[in-house]
Amino acid sequence: MNHRIVAKYIGYIMLVEGLFMIPSVFVSLWFGEPDTLKAFLPAITIPLIGGFLLSRMKTAETISMGEGFVICSLGWIVMSFFGALPFYISRRIPHFIDCWFETVSGFTTTGSTILTDVEAMPFGLLYWRSFTHWIGGMGVLVFLLAIVPLSKGNGEFFNLMKAESPGPTVGKIKPKISETAKITYLIYLGLTVIECLLLVAEGMPLFDAVVTSYGTAGTGGFGIKNNSIAFYTSQTVQMTIAVFMALFGVNFSIYYMLLTKKIHDAFADEELRWYWTIMIGGTIMIGINILPMYVNNAGQAFRDSFFSVASVMTTTGFGTADFDKWPEFSRHMLLFIMCIGASAGSTGGGIKVSRVVLLVKHLACQMRRMINPRKVSIVRMNGRRVEDSVMVGTTAYLTAYLMIFIVSVLIISFEGKGIPTTVSAVIATFNNIGPGLDVVGPTGNFSSFTPFSKFVMSVDMLLGRLEIFPILFMLSPGVWRRKSIRGRGQ
Amino acid sequence: MNHRIVAKYIGYIMLVEGLFMIPSVFVSLWFGEPDTLKAFLPAITIPLIGGFLLSRMKTAETISMGEGFVICSLGWIVMSFFGALPFYISRRIPHFIDCWFETVSGFTTTGSTILTDVEAMPFGLLYWRSFTHWIGGMGVLVFLLAIVPLSKGNGEFFNLMKAESPGPTVGKIKPKISETAKITYLIYLGLTVIECLLLVAEGMPLFDAVVTSYGTAGTGGFGIKNNSIAFYTSQTVQMTIAVFMALFGVNFSIYYMLLTKKIHDAFADEELRWYWTIMIGGTIMIGINILPMYVNNAGQAFRDSFFSVASVMTTTGFGTADFDKWPEFSRHMLLFIMCIGASAGSTGGGIKVSRVVLLVKHLACQMRRMINPRKVSIVRMNGRRVEDSVMVGTTAYLTAYLMIFIVSVLIISFEGKGIPTTVSAVIATFNNIGPGLDVVGPTGNFSSFTPFSKFVMSVDMLLGRLEIFPILFMLSPGVWRRKSIRGRGQ
Repeated sequence: MNHRIVAKYIGYIMLVEGLFMIPSVFVSLWFGEPDTLKAFLPAITIPLIGGFLLSRMKTAETISMGEGFVICSLGWIVMSFFGALPFYISRRIPHFIDCWFETVSGFTTTGSTILTDVEAMPFGLLYWRSFTHWIGGMGVLVFLLAIVPLSKGNGEFFNLMKAESPGPTVGKIKPKISETAKITYLIYLGLTVIECLLLVAEGMPLFDAVVTSYGTAGTGGFGIKNNSIAFYTSQTVQMTIAVFMALFGVNFSIYYMLLTKKIHDAFADEELRWYWTIMIGGTIMIGINILPMYVNNAGQAFRDSFFSVASVMTTTGFGTADFDKWPEFSRHMLLFIMCIGASAGSTGGGIKVSRVVLLVKHLACQMRRMINPRKVSIVRMNGRRVEDSVMVGTTAYLTAYLMIFIVSVLIISFEGKGIPTTVSAVIATFNNIGPGLDVVGPTGNFSSFTPFSKFVMSVDMLLGRLEIFPILFMLSPGVWRRKSIRGRGQ
Repeated sequence: MNHRIVAKYIGYIMLVEGLFMIPSVFVSLWFGEPDTLKAFLPAITIPLIGGFLLSRMKTAETISMGEGFVICSLGWIVMSFFGALPFYISRRIPHFIDCWFETVSGFTTTGSTILTDVEAMPFGLLYWRSFTHWIGGMGVLVFLLAIVPLSKGNGEFFNLMKAESPGPTVGKIKPKISETAKITYLIYLGLTVIECLLLVAEGMPLFDAVVTSYGTAGTGGFGIKNNSIAFYTSQTVQMTIAVFMALFGVNFSIYYMLLTKKIHDAFADEELRWYWTIMIGGTIMIGINILPMYVNNAGQAFRDSFFSVASVMTTTGFGTADFDKWPEFSRHMLLFIMCIGASAGSTGGGIKVSRVVLLVKHLACQMRRMINPRKVSIVRMNGRRVEDSVMVGTTAYLTAYLMIFIVSVLIISFEGKGIPTTVSAVIATFNNIGPGLDVVGPTGNFSSFTPFSKFVMSVDMLLGRLEIFPILFMLSPGVWRRKSIRGRGQ
């Protein structure tokens, strides 16, 4: 482990974060919020100065996979710490653990909140809170790769992108890693702007449209109204948001294929097909299940069902209807869809559709081998053979996922809030969704948990966003030793 | 698929079942229950005659793995059908679906009941009900292999044992399969007799001691009192049962090692160590958690905790305390221990400790590879390298397990009994435990479910007992074709 290179990149992250906070200053100025302004000035200055000093560090080495993991994990922790400062300094959220929880929830695009009255918050802080979703959605390291001029070749920095990007494999859109990062961010920005313009055209106030677009793009789910998206009663607005939630849960390389006119390749993508199958299938099943609750309004039932499925599957967490009041089948269905999550290479969380598809295909392959032991059966994805190493990694991921889930549930169960609350709170934070059921349902929040439980859930959010291994790696014994063996070079 | 060989072995199974029912006739005679007697006579005659005719079928072929799977799955279904007849003919359980549920629950050693007042049942039926646990615990095919004189070599019949025995691999105690089956059954019988004698010596009535021993040995859990083992207030009796539950959850090859003085090998067994670690660790954690409920009686807290953990981990399901009233941590802990289950090669159910250990070791191995990519890391169990094929099978098993779990929960959720009941009912039946939480808690029962839900849960019990694949295999398209390609021979 080269400590200097880790420090240098943490410095870059702090610098970028400081810069990302500046728009909030203008929002505070615009809405005339001097207290918020006074909170942002130190909150911006500290990471800017600290980051500048760290990033000047001289180091010539390339980044190993281990260093990539540590930079990523530590970077997200540092980022959440500084991101929490505006809330804390302004005293709008009195306890630091709550500021931390809210910021981690923002960056990890979870959207779980400890605020009981979000409408009482100043606009400057609301803007920053929603903007953390946008930053965290695509990832700050990917942003770094897109803007920092890389003197070296590609391979070295691929390790950084690998650590931060969701899914079992990272699709390189372009052979050059910086170009991949740039294109991804441009598509991300483009889609966000389109959503924002549409919402404004549909009559939403500009500020609301901007923060709602951030929440959708990052699949985060922080709202600025106490009843989330239900506040905007226009069906057009609600369906626009639902469609964009679904769009941001798609692997971004699909959009690149569409832009470069590889239409056939894009629509033949297996993960994409499963993603839409699950989403539409879930919408129909839940829609039929809740139909008796919507007398003479079947359309509304299916709209609410689609909104909730899209919100939960992409792990956004926006709400129009209180699905905690829906029949048990729908609630269980939503819990399972929460666990599946969105596509790899999207801004959504969860186990990821491609991992689930891999596991199911693998099971089918095993069954074929059993029925017909003399025929060779292999697992294919998008026509290509899936290497055993990917399969092995997926198994390890599922095991780690279940273990962390169990330990978290056991810890949170000390709160004694009942099995539905406990289990759904862990699923909602670990999969970066936001709301769960019962106490933490769409109309509830996480404020009543003890600080320790909040800390555990914030760790779950980070584990979920970074897909477990970078953080487990950072916490492994021996990793931090200066002379540990490295993956590449010494 | 050779249909004749399947029919022949189904015939053997029916014959054995008919013979196994005969002791119940004597119990009915002894207790003077003419109605029960009248029910048993046709219930015995039909499988005896049908079985005799089928078993005379001429067939020269050996058994392929596919045929072993089909014989096993179909055999258990046929066995449950005929086993349900005494309950149905005597009209003591009016609906056939309830008779079927109760019998499947017995053979699969689940112990979930639809009876609301078990004490009202005649002794002859109670005896048969508990005896199904004993038969199902070690398996009727293993019994067949132990008694039927095999004209052929070993290999062919190993496929039968493999289909019925729990765990990722089958340990052959002796190179000859019939000897392995014989020794296993003798150890099983021996332990059952010892428990029975101990319970009688401790003051339990003979009938109670016999049926309780059947329930313990098969890790089944049917009791003959409405408040299960809590009826026997003697601490000695309760702890004897607890210790024997734990003993029957151990891989039986361990006992063979002990009998043949391979003491060191026995205690070095990794699954055994993990099994006791989880059991003792769980007992201590839950004991401490429930301590405040037992003022001035810490001993009782830990005894109740040990009894419940042993009961749930071995998937027996006997109860002394109503753990549904325990704090949430304990209830969640018990749910997770339920899923882990007992050791491979024992009579217990669940995922099995060895599978869980394999998955965790595999995860650790992946982590080591990540930290130190240039060092070769492999998974070892009991000092031997675990082949990739075992790992691959374990992954497929876990995937199938989770998929069946999800589908079952979604179906049962239509009952609208609340998330704790729904989830715990599926876990309790699929893992062959018996009681769950809330409606199906230690003081509740399964009588209030709809016939369809009861059917689904009975399928779950069979899937759990036969470890999924034999049944999935039987239901696969093409398997039943006469000319399907076979694993061995044509």
